Amino acid sequence: MKVNGKNYTSIWIEQNNKVFIIDQRWLPHKFKIVELKNINDFCTAIKDMWVRGAPLIGVTAAFAFAKSMEIDNSDDDLIDIKSKLLSTRPTAVNLQWAVKIMFDLLSNTKKENRLDEAIKKAKIMLEEDINSNYRIGKNGYEIIKKIINEKKSKSLNILTHCNAGWLATVDWGTATSPIYYAKERGVNIHVFVDETRPRNQGAQLTTWELLNNDISHNLIVDNAGGHLMQHNEIDLVIVGSDRTSAKGDVCNKIGTYLKALCAYDNNVPFYVALPSSTIDWNIRDGIKDIPIEERDANEVNFVQGKDKNSNIINVDIAPEGTKSRNPAFDVTPSRLVSGLITEHGVFEANFHSMQKLEKITKGKIEDV
Amino acid sequence: MKVNGKNYTSIWIEQNNKVFIIDQRWLPHKFKIVELKNINDFCTAIKDMWVRGAPLIGVTAAFAFAKSMEIDNSDDDLIDIKSKLLSTRPTAVNLQWAVKIMFDLLSNTKKENRLDEAIKKAKIMLEEDINSNYRIGKNGYEIIKKIINEKKSKSLNILTHCNAGWLATVDWGTATSPIYYAKERGVNIHVFVDETRPRNQGAQLTTWELLNNDISHNLIVDNAGGHLMQHNEIDLVIVGSDRTSAKGDVCNKIGTYLKALCAYDNNVPFYVALPSSTIDWNIRDGIKDIPIEERDANEVNFVQGKDKNSNIINVDIAPEGTKSRNPAFDVTPSRLVSGLITEHGVFEANFHSMQKLEKITKGKIEDV
Repeated sequence: MKVNGKNYTSIWIEQNNKVFIIDQRWLPHKFKIVELKNINDFCTAIKDMWVRGAPLIGVTAAFAFAKSMEIDNSDDDLIDIKSKLLSTRPTAVNLQWAVKIMFDLLSNTKKENRLDEAIKKAKIMLEEDINSNYRIGKNGYEIIKKIINEKKSKSLNILTHCNAGWLATVDWGTATSPIYYAKERGVNIHVFVDETRPRNQGAQLTTWELLNNDISHNLIVDNAGGHLMQHNEIDLVIVGSDRTSAKGDVCNKIGTYLKALCAYDNNVPFYVALPSSTIDWNIRDGIKDIPIEERDANEVNFVQGKDKNSNIINVDIAPEGTKSRNPAFDVTPSRLVSGLITEHGVFEANFHSMQKLEKITKGKIEDV
Repeated sequence: MKVNGKNYTSIWIEQNNKVFIIDQRWLPHKFKIVELKNINDFCTAIKDMWVRGAPLIGVTAAFAFAKSMEIDNSDDDLIDIKSKLLSTRPTAVNLQWAVKIMFDLLSNTKKENRLDEAIKKAKIMLEEDINSNYRIGKNGYEIIKKIINEKKSKSLNILTHCNAGWLATVDWGTATSPIYYAKERGVNIHVFVDETRPRNQGAQLTTWELLNNDISHNLIVDNAGGHLMQHNEIDLVIVGSDRTSAKGDVCNKIGTYLKALCAYDNNVPFYVALPSSTIDWNIRDGIKDIPIEERDANEVNFVQGKDKNSNIINVDIAPEGTKSRNPAFDVTPSRLVSGLITEHGVFEANFHSMQKLEKITKGKIEDV
């Protein structure tokens, strides 16, 4: 998508296998591009959230394998890379998915071919992510069209939480993809952006994306969505997912569950946009079985922003030494989810409907 | 309650009718006491939230009349004060309640007696607020005891939103009063404090109160409560109210409704602690009929905190010029409210139960 009028993806590879990312820690205030050279660079970038978002983490992990093969293509190194990457972020299933694909591929590849194969595969995964997100946009657009027809209006108000935007993927985004897709087809879309504490990905990233791509929007605090829904100011909620259970429970950024509850309470459709790689077919009960990452309490106590001298700093919002709790995700039970927008179509969030999706993703039946 | 080991109220009057408040804008980082001398001081203090919280705003308005009588005790001045005070904060019904009491009293008092009468009445309202909150604590304690007995435990985890603490009243607080009352009786209470964006009254004030009064607590972002309830980490929710309808719809700080929804979804009791003066007997449907104050968008775009040099500053969290929406309150429908803890006892949030409360408050039947 566009940044200052120019097209970017969130990760890319240039000549001589140089891999670049947008270092998202400084957005929206500074737009920084960084080259990642070795496994430590990649692990730091994932762990400290220079890159974030389930799909982008997956592709970044694939390139981590690729770049590591330049330095050491031994079996020991493969095991080492796998273990280092898996320890960066415990919740995102795409990380595990990408690591497994790369590890299995390279374990079964001769050492001398590992670099080439890894680069080739990582590039394919990058392209597949872009294509997959584009198809999510197309499939989500059908929902948007339906709501607009029902409303008999050309405009639509959408609420989104966190950043499931192009910055969370390689391009297009998941939750934002239907928005960009619909906008390109002339739909007048307005987005309410949850700021998404503690890390404010909504305030920092989603607003910046929408601004750069000319989509009308308002920033709101995470507390405000319920009130807006009570007063018919929101027609549709679309969020992303970090991990989805086989019956459609959705693990996503902390606070998603609260938005699902108020959408349900106000008859506002609540859709989750996700690549099917985000689904963990081994997990059925998301609330019981998805482990939730508890992050550093300082993310709660401190807020990052730009001071009047344009320095990016952290300010302490609580009494010094306040003990905070910081669960990073929550799980929205499938009963609150109107549907899952995937690259293979829109599915109901229940075991029966998702069995069909499982068969498609596992190549057992044709795509719909 | 205690500040650095010494007892304070949030507003008080000293010799020669000098009125002091705690200027809450700088908490928790700086503890500042300010004298309010004339109507402009009082209006600024209310409008710019040096003092905040429905009960404290009411008492502050009463003292505004009193101090103004020192300067000008004319009929014109009474009308002027009334109009200035009413324009400060549109939502809080206690403001309107206190202004009406003072205006009616002084309109029917000879000019030469107005100062003395106003001081006397403001002092009574201050004492009544303290007593009323103490009784809220006592009545709320019955609920706490009941839950503890059911749990067969000596400890209780309570979630609260915003600051309905002693700083929002003259003393004790509303939502915090049962907590302080129970703590004094040996109950092992742990409080989860919603930070309460945009103004972070939870992070800044409630944590500071609890810290100073030795109550165990964790700060959490507003997004986290649902997850904690899903995992049985919260036994009880107590919040305050800025305005309550005659059938028990509760208008309180933005985001309260979301906590009520997740409490309901997880069978966690959701109580509202309020002085009966907060009830607007003329309003039945709170969602339809309570006007919601929309405050400055900069409250969303900027976050106040302490920088590393201990300066209290604001940082910009969003792209420059981001347009934000900032509704300050929402309305929790009575169907989600387990009960109203008032100075006259605990009432169900429905028209029938509240009719009894209305009769008590209007002196038609004896207190229960």
